[in-house]
Amino acid sequence: MDMLWNGWGDPAKAAPLPEAVTGLLRDLLGVKPRSTPAPGLEDIRPPAPTAAPAALRALAAAVGDEHVRTDAESRVRHTRGKSTPDLLRIRAGDVTDVPQAVVLPATHDEVLAVLGACAAHGLAVVPFGGGTSVVGGLAPQRSAFIALDLRRMNRLLDLDPVSRTAVLQPGLRAPEAEALLAGHGFTLGHFPQSFEWATIGGFAAARSSGQASAGYGRFDEMVLGLTLATPEGTIETGRAPRSAAGPDLRQLILGSEGAFGVITSVTVRIRPLPEVRVYEGWRFGSFEEGAAALRRLAQDGPRPTVLRLSDETETLIGLAQPDAIGADPAQGGAGCLAIAGYEGTAEDTAYRRERAAAVLTDCGGTSAGAEPGERWAHGRYSAPYLRDALLDVGAFAETLETAAFWSRVPELYEGVRTALTDTLTRAGTPPLVMCHISHVYENGASLYFTVVSAQGEDPVAHWTPAKHAANEAVLAAGGTISHHHGVGTDHRDWYVREAGPLGVSALRAVKRRLDPEGLLNPGVLLPTD
Amino acid sequence: MDMLWNGWGDPAKAAPLPEAVTGLLRDLLGVKPRSTPAPGLEDIRPPAPTAAPAALRALAAAVGDEHVRTDAESRVRHTRGKSTPDLLRIRAGDVTDVPQAVVLPATHDEVLAVLGACAAHGLAVVPFGGGTSVVGGLAPQRSAFIALDLRRMNRLLDLDPVSRTAVLQPGLRAPEAEALLAGHGFTLGHFPQSFEWATIGGFAAARSSGQASAGYGRFDEMVLGLTLATPEGTIETGRAPRSAAGPDLRQLILGSEGAFGVITSVTVRIRPLPEVRVYEGWRFGSFEEGAAALRRLAQDGPRPTVLRLSDETETLIGLAQPDAIGADPAQGGAGCLAIAGYEGTAEDTAYRRERAAAVLTDCGGTSAGAEPGERWAHGRYSAPYLRDALLDVGAFAETLETAAFWSRVPELYEGVRTALTDTLTRAGTPPLVMCHISHVYENGASLYFTVVSAQGEDPVAHWTPAKHAANEAVLAAGGTISHHHGVGTDHRDWYVREAGPLGVSALRAVKRRLDPEGLLNPGVLLPTD
Repeated sequence: MDMLWNGWGDPAKAAPLPEAVTGLLRDLLGVKPRSTPAPGLEDIRPPAPTAAPAALRALAAAVGDEHVRTDAESRVRHTRGKSTPDLLRIRAGDVTDVPQAVVLPATHDEVLAVLGACAAHGLAVVPFGGGTSVVGGLAPQRSAFIALDLRRMNRLLDLDPVSRTAVLQPGLRAPEAEALLAGHGFTLGHFPQSFEWATIGGFAAARSSGQASAGYGRFDEMVLGLTLATPEGTIETGRAPRSAAGPDLRQLILGSEGAFGVITSVTVRIRPLPEVRVYEGWRFGSFEEGAAALRRLAQDGPRPTVLRLSDETETLIGLAQPDAIGADPAQGGAGCLAIAGYEGTAEDTAYRRERAAAVLTDCGGTSAGAEPGERWAHGRYSAPYLRDALLDVGAFAETLETAAFWSRVPELYEGVRTALTDTLTRAGTPPLVMCHISHVYENGASLYFTVVSAQGEDPVAHWTPAKHAANEAVLAAGGTISHHHGVGTDHRDWYVREAGPLGVSALRAVKRRLDPEGLLNPGVLLPTD
Repeated sequence: MDMLWNGWGDPAKAAPLPEAVTGLLRDLLGVKPRSTPAPGLEDIRPPAPTAAPAALRALAAAVGDEHVRTDAESRVRHTRGKSTPDLLRIRAGDVTDVPQAVVLPATHDEVLAVLGACAAHGLAVVPFGGGTSVVGGLAPQRSAFIALDLRRMNRLLDLDPVSRTAVLQPGLRAPEAEALLAGHGFTLGHFPQSFEWATIGGFAAARSSGQASAGYGRFDEMVLGLTLATPEGTIETGRAPRSAAGPDLRQLILGSEGAFGVITSVTVRIRPLPEVRVYEGWRFGSFEEGAAALRRLAQDGPRPTVLRLSDETETLIGLAQPDAIGADPAQGGAGCLAIAGYEGTAEDTAYRRERAAAVLTDCGGTSAGAEPGERWAHGRYSAPYLRDALLDVGAFAETLETAAFWSRVPELYEGVRTALTDTLTRAGTPPLVMCHISHVYENGASLYFTVVSAQGEDPVAHWTPAKHAANEAVLAAGGTISHHHGVGTDHRDWYVREAGPLGVSALRAVKRRLDPEGLLNPGVLLPTD
């Protein structure tokens, strides 16, 4: 099944907004229904490929004729990712970033052969996993490029139950990977919001972080080994969980977003399938109070497997439990809602849950019982579908995220919220800005913001200044430009400031060594020369 | 106080071997007393510096006259590190690796100024923390170099009790850092065997791992931010505990062993001082049985703070508790001795200790009570002193370490042990080879080997083939060439094979960008051009 071409996910799961929400959007934010009908997929006609026939023949020689696709639908489906500007552009029929062809290799050696063919014919290469980038990670700054779709590389290559490691191919979607591991009694434990569609290779390339990161860790913490195919050859890394043999090459490949090479296998840490999964709600009087409670659990334990906290606005609107949106407003409720989840053995989850409950109570929290937790779990992958419904009725909705050390989190929260609110209000479309703490660490936390407003005349142009203002606020408050979405093209200019000129220069030296002709995702992560 | 110039540590702590051990060495290994007396420090006369007076003036301009030392004692004290070959060489009066001068900067800017002066005058630079490298990390492949001693950069620059972070200067020795943090109620929790002498900068540059790594993590896991001074300028990194903003630059600097730049500050994670510290012994019938028990705790918990297991030979000899060596043999005892330690709050340590005891018992272990744990804790930094005593009586003693995924650990253990035993036996000096699991992870473990034998005619030449055979065995068994000692010059050729030609090439591209003239630790970590 393919993802909805101009929105998110399984087309069968699309659902219109409840009437109450449409009314709220109209009355509160001035959202007006769209006047122009959106084009259908069949209406979108990208320009014919300009790649030389010899280039296409070379690609076919690398992967087989049937795995080089130049039809309009394949090309449109590989145009950009799934940020709101991406969706708005494709819904407007804008295919300026369409690939010349979609190429589907089946092996590491086929990837090397494709890179060779592209080098020979001057084509850039955009590695394409689930296509779920929300930061412009699939929009290279070169007109002639191919999308390297890794979906045929979708096998579990090895599983070592003693070491608790598995070797996965990059094109495996997360549910496929989980199903394969579950067949052996294991789980990866990586459940980001993009879970249904995103791939193992994408998680590694973009340093994904899942909703259960408090318990299972971030994806970059799960990775023990990587194979990278580059135009200059192959890098294989990871002979031990940890090593003092030089800089950690794994951590140079993780987060490289296809700019250094194509990840062709990933060795991950796996864990036994949990006996028990339980999620529950806690209420706090304020975001500050709730944040202090989360910090205490993150620093002193016991650590839940899932731990998140919505601010007052997100709690009120009910986005803390997407399924509850538009239901009885009491479902949202006052104060701030936190979700704490526990996965593991029966004994361990019982112990952690009981001890964490004592800590949360001591920090001013009140148990809201299992229902908010179960609602959250049921709706944990729903938000992108909700965004489609909002776009459909003429609203604008987008998310962004960052992280900082705990002492800077309040400043980061206020700074980003103010930047978004002020910029969009000045533009005549006052927004709803909601936020939650989505991931916690001993030393800091991430903040995940959701913005909803009217679209304005030109919805992409309407959003850009607000997004830029938010990026500035992130840097000003000492935060990182992305905690788990990545850099792509959207964050690149701020990333360059965050990493500093010499840091960026060191990474460009790596890129030049591995990709001397600059074929790989040009302009993504690092500026082009 | 300075470290013993031709051995380890505080000269006042040197202790001769018990008579029983000397007898054992003689009878079992054929160790003969040394016939030539060792030279004194005053007998060692390094060649006069060849650096141009203008170079020394430029260095003095960078740090002040009194912080450029060219006297013989300072230079001899900064010659090489503390591997056994290093000690044997300096005891033989070999000062071929002596620096031209010892330069002591006080600030990041002074480090930059020193690098500028060295670039202008063609001097290489060896960053020098505690001088405790055991892998040739202080023996550059250039004759004209300075030792950049960081001892004046020994301040706690910042402590954030909310985020639980501290900013430390690189020249702080671990006990000094712990004392400064303890003044605020915190600890770093990093206790490697080199604890008394090694520095914060060295821990970062060489990816140190401490004896309490099961609880506190490795040093590279504690590092949240770094400042690096290079000939091309400064890199500052670390705005959040974790980030998806590109490759992790911190992990490119960690393990760079002074070859990319000089680490001038380190932001670390800190934890509250533990209320309770308790260490205890457990006995297992075999190394295999004990390793399975450690694996189960590492994978399923509860995780002790300290967790280690000596093999049969190490247990028998008593090296599991260095203070017990030469005491009643029953102190060593049969089977394999494990040490499990717990640090934290009273409640948490009690819970973990009780649960871990149930797991260890279930895995076939028998409690040996608190005494072996307390003995281990008391002697935890003693082994290098013991080595000096062994060298003094004409024995050879050296250590090496590696790590692999759990399923490869038995092969790694057998392979390295056999390589060491066979090579030294063939050379006419059959060794005692002892081993312990020193660090555990969910997915693997490290092995730490100790070798004792007679010295042979030329003790360095005697050891080299055995060390090389061990390195080959490590790679053959899928292990990493170093789990926590680092690469230096001793492991470099094997590291190059482990990282692979393209991986090494990518790192050399970074080095060329940051250190285009190759001033920094030439030949350490990476081969020179």
